[in-house]
Amino acid sequence: MIALERLNSISAQDFVAALASIFEHSSWVPERIAPLRPFNSAIALHKAMCEAVLQADDGLQLALIRAHPELAGRAALAGDLTSASTSEQKGAGLSALTRPQLARLQSLNADYVGRFGFPFVLAVKGHTPDSVIATLAERVCHDAHEERTVALREICRIAHFRLSELVEEPLGDAIIAMAEDLGSLSEDSGALTCAYLMPAHRATAARIRDFMMAAGLTTRIDAVGNVVGVLEGGPNPKRILTGSHYDTVINAGKYDGRLGIVLPIAVAGALRRAGSRLPFALEIIAFAEEEGVRFKSTFLGSRAVAGRFDPRDLDSVDAGGTRLADAIRAAGHDLEAIPAIARDASEVACFVEVHIEQGPVLLEAGLPLGVVTRIAGSVRSAVTVEGLSGHAGTVPMTLRRDAAAAAAEMVLAVERRCREQPDLVGTVGKLDVPGGAVNVIPGRCEFSIDIRSGSDALRDAAAADIGAAIGEIAARRGVKVEQRRVLNAASVPCAPPLQDAWAASIERITGRPALRLPSGAGHDAMMMASLTDIGMLFVRCGNGGISHHPDETLSAADADVAARVFRDFLLHFKGPT
Amino acid sequence: MIALERLNSISAQDFVAALASIFEHSSWVPERIAPLRPFNSAIALHKAMCEAVLQADDGLQLALIRAHPELAGRAALAGDLTSASTSEQKGAGLSALTRPQLARLQSLNADYVGRFGFPFVLAVKGHTPDSVIATLAERVCHDAHEERTVALREICRIAHFRLSELVEEPLGDAIIAMAEDLGSLSEDSGALTCAYLMPAHRATAARIRDFMMAAGLTTRIDAVGNVVGVLEGGPNPKRILTGSHYDTVINAGKYDGRLGIVLPIAVAGALRRAGSRLPFALEIIAFAEEEGVRFKSTFLGSRAVAGRFDPRDLDSVDAGGTRLADAIRAAGHDLEAIPAIARDASEVACFVEVHIEQGPVLLEAGLPLGVVTRIAGSVRSAVTVEGLSGHAGTVPMTLRRDAAAAAAEMVLAVERRCREQPDLVGTVGKLDVPGGAVNVIPGRCEFSIDIRSGSDALRDAAAADIGAAIGEIAARRGVKVEQRRVLNAASVPCAPPLQDAWAASIERITGRPALRLPSGAGHDAMMMASLTDIGMLFVRCGNGGISHHPDETLSAADADVAARVFRDFLLHFKGPT
Repeated sequence: MIALERLNSISAQDFVAALASIFEHSSWVPERIAPLRPFNSAIALHKAMCEAVLQADDGLQLALIRAHPELAGRAALAGDLTSASTSEQKGAGLSALTRPQLARLQSLNADYVGRFGFPFVLAVKGHTPDSVIATLAERVCHDAHEERTVALREICRIAHFRLSELVEEPLGDAIIAMAEDLGSLSEDSGALTCAYLMPAHRATAARIRDFMMAAGLTTRIDAVGNVVGVLEGGPNPKRILTGSHYDTVINAGKYDGRLGIVLPIAVAGALRRAGSRLPFALEIIAFAEEEGVRFKSTFLGSRAVAGRFDPRDLDSVDAGGTRLADAIRAAGHDLEAIPAIARDASEVACFVEVHIEQGPVLLEAGLPLGVVTRIAGSVRSAVTVEGLSGHAGTVPMTLRRDAAAAAAEMVLAVERRCREQPDLVGTVGKLDVPGGAVNVIPGRCEFSIDIRSGSDALRDAAAADIGAAIGEIAARRGVKVEQRRVLNAASVPCAPPLQDAWAASIERITGRPALRLPSGAGHDAMMMASLTDIGMLFVRCGNGGISHHPDETLSAADADVAARVFRDFLLHFKGPT
Repeated sequence: MIALERLNSISAQDFVAALASIFEHSSWVPERIAPLRPFNSAIALHKAMCEAVLQADDGLQLALIRAHPELAGRAALAGDLTSASTSEQKGAGLSALTRPQLARLQSLNADYVGRFGFPFVLAVKGHTPDSVIATLAERVCHDAHEERTVALREICRIAHFRLSELVEEPLGDAIIAMAEDLGSLSEDSGALTCAYLMPAHRATAARIRDFMMAAGLTTRIDAVGNVVGVLEGGPNPKRILTGSHYDTVINAGKYDGRLGIVLPIAVAGALRRAGSRLPFALEIIAFAEEEGVRFKSTFLGSRAVAGRFDPRDLDSVDAGGTRLADAIRAAGHDLEAIPAIARDASEVACFVEVHIEQGPVLLEAGLPLGVVTRIAGSVRSAVTVEGLSGHAGTVPMTLRRDAAAAAAEMVLAVERRCREQPDLVGTVGKLDVPGGAVNVIPGRCEFSIDIRSGSDALRDAAAADIGAAIGEIAARRGVKVEQRRVLNAASVPCAPPLQDAWAASIERITGRPALRLPSGAGHDAMMMASLTDIGMLFVRCGNGGISHHPDETLSAADADVAARVFRDFLLHFKGPT
């Protein structure tokens, strides 16, 4: 392997030589991009090469495609060629075809070459003989221009996989580059939105699967769209599960969810390339749905894995009237296969999730990482205050029953009570005087309350105190108040042995004691807790801790130390206690 | 005259006899409504009669129309008839036609009778010979069905004027009935909305003019739509102006503005019928526009009268894109005539306005009336608080910069400061977290402030203190705040001699000392103050003082005592001091 830093600094000639194997017999590709150095990630290098390929003239593009051997062709099967392609083809089982498969493939290959004048090129990673044949049968029907574009894109995917085996870079840089790359796939131009099973979401799943394949994992996409990559190990029969979600809120940040996918992929790839075989399999799950943006089906991905899938959710509809069941079917999935996604608890050692903190605690503490003690539950209420509307100029202050002033006092009561204890937060996120006018005393004011704590007892006591304070304020001001409880979710503890294991890894890698903190936000781990022990690692969130916002940031240095801690955690894992 | 109470209690035969002169030779009309007694107002009695006329069969309707003498016909002109119609016709100058007018009228009359088979009937009050001829020329072109309906409606208007001379009722009942009647003319079904020059507004102007004519006033509608009625008096050359606006807010109450029109009309009618001749003319002005709903042309009517009309307002457009100038022209007015609406200050003694309080001060004090000391100006600001958005579960309370919590503290600061002095009010009427979500710490909160006082110094001091308090709260909480001043209007004092005159009248009529109070709301009197001394009488507002709302109420008893105080004020008025 060669370091990206070295590729950036060697002569153009050496650069071209180092990358000669990436595109079959086509050194013009690295030649064209050599002047664009330095590249700040392997993904950036790869993107530049793909751009050069897609913008090359017809002659160069056709020559590049024709440089590839015929798939499962006679020479390849006979082992006469020693090219990278040949060994890749073996991985997809193409060296062990049945006689009918071989006949079908050769017949389609002949049709294909006859039609397009170049050999069928496919990145065979993740394929089976049958899926290769199905893909070829589909592509042979393309028109010539379309098919040339598909072939060039497949050549770029092959280049991606080859590059992963050739170029090494700091894990932090690789992690940031993957998150940036996924962040470019969005429903909205200029903002990141990736809602369940929308086209951008499906493209994201495919890209995550490519990342997993490039890392050398065995991959699949399950019946709800979760992307699964397994790093095989042994001999422990129980596997470690890890992961997070790849769907996002509207106008999201790039790390919420995705960090817990791309970081384990980077670490798994590094372990495999280094030849470190873990004593257990590591299964990375990119959950398809956690945010509940499109179908209000919050945690759909992890619920399916944890065996908590609720078939009634299939009837929920999105804003456009599409049923969840129909969206899943339209994405090519089999609804009948959903229950089988549930893992067998006896085969699972634990579930660990790496997540950006989404808050400023680590930032304020000056620490890159923290161990999550528990995931807070939340109590949510919708509050409506009814006072008496009136003319802003004519009603003396002493005779008013102003709904907004009463609500203001209640907002401050929420804040005051929740400030009393550190492991407690309370938020009035919605606040509105419906139809308010500058010269009218508010007759009505509506607001929301969200109270959370790692301790359910603490949270429930605060909720009770706040409810009583609101009642007292309303009575004193002569306004009516309705407090409607809309959610009451218990908190979920992280398993103490896993907390300790994370803390030990943090201390080994950073040389400093680990900070333990509760998670105020909900995470996929909450669902996984009904299947197995859970543990969570928080990574520092920049920019004041802002999240669910494009300004969410994560530094490459923090991603790097988190990746080293994650690797240390895996290497020291002793199995369930 | 006969009391309505008596009409309600006498025998049906006597009832019919008493009302025999209302519809020419058609006693079937009172016969049909006798069983519907009691009527709670003369307007209700009149409405029932009109209903009976409009629902009668063809034969009765035609007989009723034919019972009317030919307008300006030979018999009438010769004085051979002694009917009510004849004397009414004299009032419109029809007994003193020029020769060409007479020729034209007789020619049109002949056409009309030939076409429809019945005489031309017109309520001639308010008409001139030329306007009668123009109306006849237009109506002769109607189709037969349309013209019969018009003729019957004119007969009903004649009945209204005749009834006013015959039936007496408590002034309070008459005032409430007029306001109810105007309240039925609306753009919206089920709610009262009467915006400038919309069809309901023009119908309201015509109805007010009928009320004025029924009271015996000399009327006109000026070039901005103000309806003016003059009760002639003498010998004092200066006249008293009074009035208020007839346009309304959206979904309005029935008394805001209109009370100050119908109360003086009721009092003027009673004075005239009683033969009490005031030493000065009383001019009642129903201002066409004060609320600024359609064109934001607030106070348009009184500004024109006070000589403060701004021609630039003519370019303002309503929500449908109609220019104010075009709306005025489409209503048949002459834009060139607007400047001449301005009164000559040397001919005006004062302007007095009767208005419902629109607040609860009189209600709380247990008093029907109050004397206004001054009309508060107001300072208005638009405030925007910018904090830092964040996840509701992940940001500890101590690290938050919550825009809504900061705004809540600011709302209470407004309230606290404005509670310190009695003649001061402060309102946060708009309050909103734009795009707020239950699980997001508000990054932005917007609200409005409106501060008013009878004393500009008091108000400005409060505004300064509140501005400083908001700045202090923002600084302490680490949020940014923008306070944008959107209005700064000085208060307008009521002339002390007029205050004293109102107070003296209240004390004479009610036997109790008069309460003096500032007006928090703006009124037409504010504009009139640049022309002459102003005085205002407030009348108790029921229902907690609610206004700008369909629940606004006024009792007939309060209207009655207000009318008696207004009459007393007029009878004791000594002219400007």
